[in-house]
Amino acid sequence: MNRQELIEQIRLKKSFLCVGLDTDIKKIPEHLLGEEDPIFAFNKAIIDATAPSCVAYKPNLAFSESNGVKGWISFEKTIDYLNANYPDHFIIADAKRGDIGNTSAMYARTFFEEMDIDSLTVAPYMGEDSVTPFLAYEGKWVILLALTSNKGSHDFQLTSDTEGERLFEKVLRKSQEWGNKDNMMYVVGATQGRMFEDIRKIVPDHFLLVPGVGAQGGSLEEVCKYGMNADCGLLVNSSRAIIYADKTERFAEVAAEEAKKVQQEMEALLK
Amino acid sequence: MNRQELIEQIRLKKSFLCVGLDTDIKKIPEHLLGEEDPIFAFNKAIIDATAPSCVAYKPNLAFSESNGVKGWISFEKTIDYLNANYPDHFIIADAKRGDIGNTSAMYARTFFEEMDIDSLTVAPYMGEDSVTPFLAYEGKWVILLALTSNKGSHDFQLTSDTEGERLFEKVLRKSQEWGNKDNMMYVVGATQGRMFEDIRKIVPDHFLLVPGVGAQGGSLEEVCKYGMNADCGLLVNSSRAIIYADKTERFAEVAAEEAKKVQQEMEALLK
Repeated sequence: MNRQELIEQIRLKKSFLCVGLDTDIKKIPEHLLGEEDPIFAFNKAIIDATAPSCVAYKPNLAFSESNGVKGWISFEKTIDYLNANYPDHFIIADAKRGDIGNTSAMYARTFFEEMDIDSLTVAPYMGEDSVTPFLAYEGKWVILLALTSNKGSHDFQLTSDTEGERLFEKVLRKSQEWGNKDNMMYVVGATQGRMFEDIRKIVPDHFLLVPGVGAQGGSLEEVCKYGMNADCGLLVNSSRAIIYADKTERFAEVAAEEAKKVQQEMEALLK
Repeated sequence: MNRQELIEQIRLKKSFLCVGLDTDIKKIPEHLLGEEDPIFAFNKAIIDATAPSCVAYKPNLAFSESNGVKGWISFEKTIDYLNANYPDHFIIADAKRGDIGNTSAMYARTFFEEMDIDSLTVAPYMGEDSVTPFLAYEGKWVILLALTSNKGSHDFQLTSDTEGERLFEKVLRKSQEWGNKDNMMYVVGATQGRMFEDIRKIVPDHFLLVPGVGAQGGSLEEVCKYGMNADCGLLVNSSRAIIYADKTERFAEVAAEEAKKVQQEMEALLK
């Protein structure tokens, strides 16, 4: 999916919600455990329930991998289901990959060729040749970690260099030599508040993927106040607060209600 | 495997070689493609051939994942094979993971509980809570990226902060608040030459995992000159130069010869 199509979907749905599929076999409703593939059954129900209210899905690879081969099968089925039934939803594989060039190229092959996924989260620590192999695919996106939502983001990302530039700022600036607003987004945590202003000084036009609303405590209103641009420029993710809002047989219905609530907040903020 | 056992293996085998299993279906000998699981058949043959000359194996997850579910099956079979037949070899899952706390905890569950792997490479960009979940496992190791072997290592890792400390140095220093020489190692590329001196000033006793000898052009002699400590303190990895040294039916035999050559160089350098 390209930038223009994504913007169009946001306008159409009046939403910039991304639903995070952090599907943990230990947290899904018990009645699903009898299904042949409980993880996929859960994902499918959540997707069908929330699709009208969101523009993107973000399956988290860690949760798939924790179930080994079975988890990987559920992951591929989830991607196939999305591509077959919801081609207008943007798919983010939240995998935080990044390695030397030939290895990043293998990851790119996995996520962009073998599976038809729109985008992948990538860690910037290893620099240019760890990121550029992912940019070789037309219509695919790198979502580079910039300023993350967790407490540990303070350990290295805020370190200032001798010219006063903080590491996350250097990542934003430097990576624009490798990609552009049509093939690169950045992860910026919703918990970072006014820092969005500093980020917008460096990447005014890029899309930002914003985790940390909901369970992690970030404020949607603040994110929009400091981070939204003329094209919206935001994909705000919520995982646990939506998918685990209810653990009974009504889980999908309640997830739909929660997603709808967020969508309505977003609709107001888009005005 | 704990630190003392690893040191003992290095003394016993007179080797600190780690064989990297970067197994690419497109690069393995053609005659293996008829096997039921060509990747596993290749790994098994390489392991049996090189085991006497090395102390560690490093399967690279990117190469497994590029084959999807099948690749994940081959990966698990490789780990099971190593654990069953070579319990004295240290296993490194080269995955470069790292995410917010609850997600890193899932990755830890995958690699340390579901599969019995000794260690995992981890990217430091997200800081403390992305690393510490991996340290909760007795006898397991985090191998944190410090100064990598690739050209992109210059983009961020060498950036000096206002007090003159470079990012990789900050990673080394700061991470010692989270782990110690018994549960943490660092990735330092063989291509970094004299920088090993600077690294040893901060982590004199830790083991370093050193990729970049062989195909990437690093010098084993230089690594030892500047990086070796009283316990050896090095695991030097070679992947492509060993596993793809020959592409005929003799591939395993030639891999054994190549590994043996490196072991002999190492034996001389250990004296």
